[in-house]
Amino acid sequence: MIIIGELINSTRKAIKRAIDEQDVAFIQDLAVKQEEAGADYIDVNAGAYVHEEGKHLIWLVETVQAVVSKPLTLDSPDPKALEAAMKVHKGVPMINSISAEKERYNQVMPLVKESGAQVIALCMSDDGMPETADERLEVAKRLLSDLDKDGIDLTNVFLDPLIKPVSVNGEYGPQALDAIERIAVLGSGAHITSGLSNISFGLPHRALLNQAFIVLAMGRGMDSAIVDPLDKKKMSLVKAVEVILNLDPYAMNYLKASRAGRLI
Amino acid sequence: MIIIGELINSTRKAIKRAIDEQDVAFIQDLAVKQEEAGADYIDVNAGAYVHEEGKHLIWLVETVQAVVSKPLTLDSPDPKALEAAMKVHKGVPMINSISAEKERYNQVMPLVKESGAQVIALCMSDDGMPETADERLEVAKRLLSDLDKDGIDLTNVFLDPLIKPVSVNGEYGPQALDAIERIAVLGSGAHITSGLSNISFGLPHRALLNQAFIVLAMGRGMDSAIVDPLDKKKMSLVKAVEVILNLDPYAMNYLKASRAGRLI
Repeated sequence: MIIIGELINSTRKAIKRAIDEQDVAFIQDLAVKQEEAGADYIDVNAGAYVHEEGKHLIWLVETVQAVVSKPLTLDSPDPKALEAAMKVHKGVPMINSISAEKERYNQVMPLVKESGAQVIALCMSDDGMPETADERLEVAKRLLSDLDKDGIDLTNVFLDPLIKPVSVNGEYGPQALDAIERIAVLGSGAHITSGLSNISFGLPHRALLNQAFIVLAMGRGMDSAIVDPLDKKKMSLVKAVEVILNLDPYAMNYLKASRAGRLI
Repeated sequence: MIIIGELINSTRKAIKRAIDEQDVAFIQDLAVKQEEAGADYIDVNAGAYVHEEGKHLIWLVETVQAVVSKPLTLDSPDPKALEAAMKVHKGVPMINSISAEKERYNQVMPLVKESGAQVIALCMSDDGMPETADERLEVAKRLLSDLDKDGIDLTNVFLDPLIKPVSVNGEYGPQALDAIERIAVLGSGAHITSGLSNISFGLPHRALLNQAFIVLAMGRGMDSAIVDPLDKKKMSLVKAVEVILNLDPYAMNYLKASRAGRLI
């Protein structure tokens, strides 16, 4: 399971404050904690700064890379901000995100191609957000076909089926899980990821719903998630699922996590 | 999700002691706690008493039914013990269990038929325990066909695919989940249940693995489980899964459980 740590996001109050005050220690502490908790990528987002996104994204990249060795996920729909951040990022980053929206695709794709970056591809087109598994699958196929034609290695692609809240429509859960399975069985080589906490929007005990959803989604073929890696229970469940699905031969990682006191 | 509370089992030391000493209060307390925690059936097992199983099973039935209103699951492979216990059980019980083993089937089936009881049917034949999903599916189909021919209402049947420890063979997890899905899609009307804690045998943090497994199994179509209902985290995850799979319209049960302080 490829874990993308989501906590350094300027839409969160504590992060906005830290960026405003250039609080290096706060950001670095959160970056290190996420890496220690098992994040494979650290997402950085400065989207709260409409006119200064690039500047703040650069600051986040430099601040975080000073203390962690894992690559970052540069989280912006703005090609200019992405390009600026990529220039200072050491090593190959992940880009979050591209989509099947024509303008966004055409602007972000060249950045992906030049850099050989990993890229999150949202299953969203100019027709809007998908509702059903069918619609997600259709956009996913189009993205895979276009990215392949444009010379992108599909093993660098992380398709995001876009999870919607079950509180809005009870069918959004089954439709999302069906979409994940149907994308997985395409066997394209692309990963499947998701900012899954949307599933629980509007309901109490959101962490509980998110934990249940990540397990269900892994059972249907999702192999990455954009999550809070400091949720110890969720990360423990991920390790347990890897054992049950035989993705962790001889339970080596699970036993290591157990010995390190990481399982609850 | 139909929950069968597994705690009153004489193979557990504390229960054996309570039966030895005819400790009514201890057994009743455990029965009430399981019912309060959401068990739909309370399993009672006196299998530790080889020559006096019937006698002790009768005592368990009378002791437990004095304080709970949910039906009991009479847990014995011995038709004589089952028959004795059924005579004192008020209302229609569940029988645990029948199998495709010829002798066992022929002895237990008439008890099921006469009483109209629910019955757990183990996917095990005279050829032994199944290894693969294929083998489980084959035995499941035979059981469904035989029970149907013998006039048993299949909606009273709870097929148990028999879960084996992933510590023994890493493929036992995927095979069990595949079996569940393939039995579910038969659309026979039968339920699928399982004493799922076997999955984690031989590994640390067993409760964690059991929690992950119940979520995965529900995702593939399991609609019942034989579990410890006092594991609050597991029961919370079950409620969350029901919301995500749209089995709990408008999250009514989930919100009720939340208000009652039952979710963690």
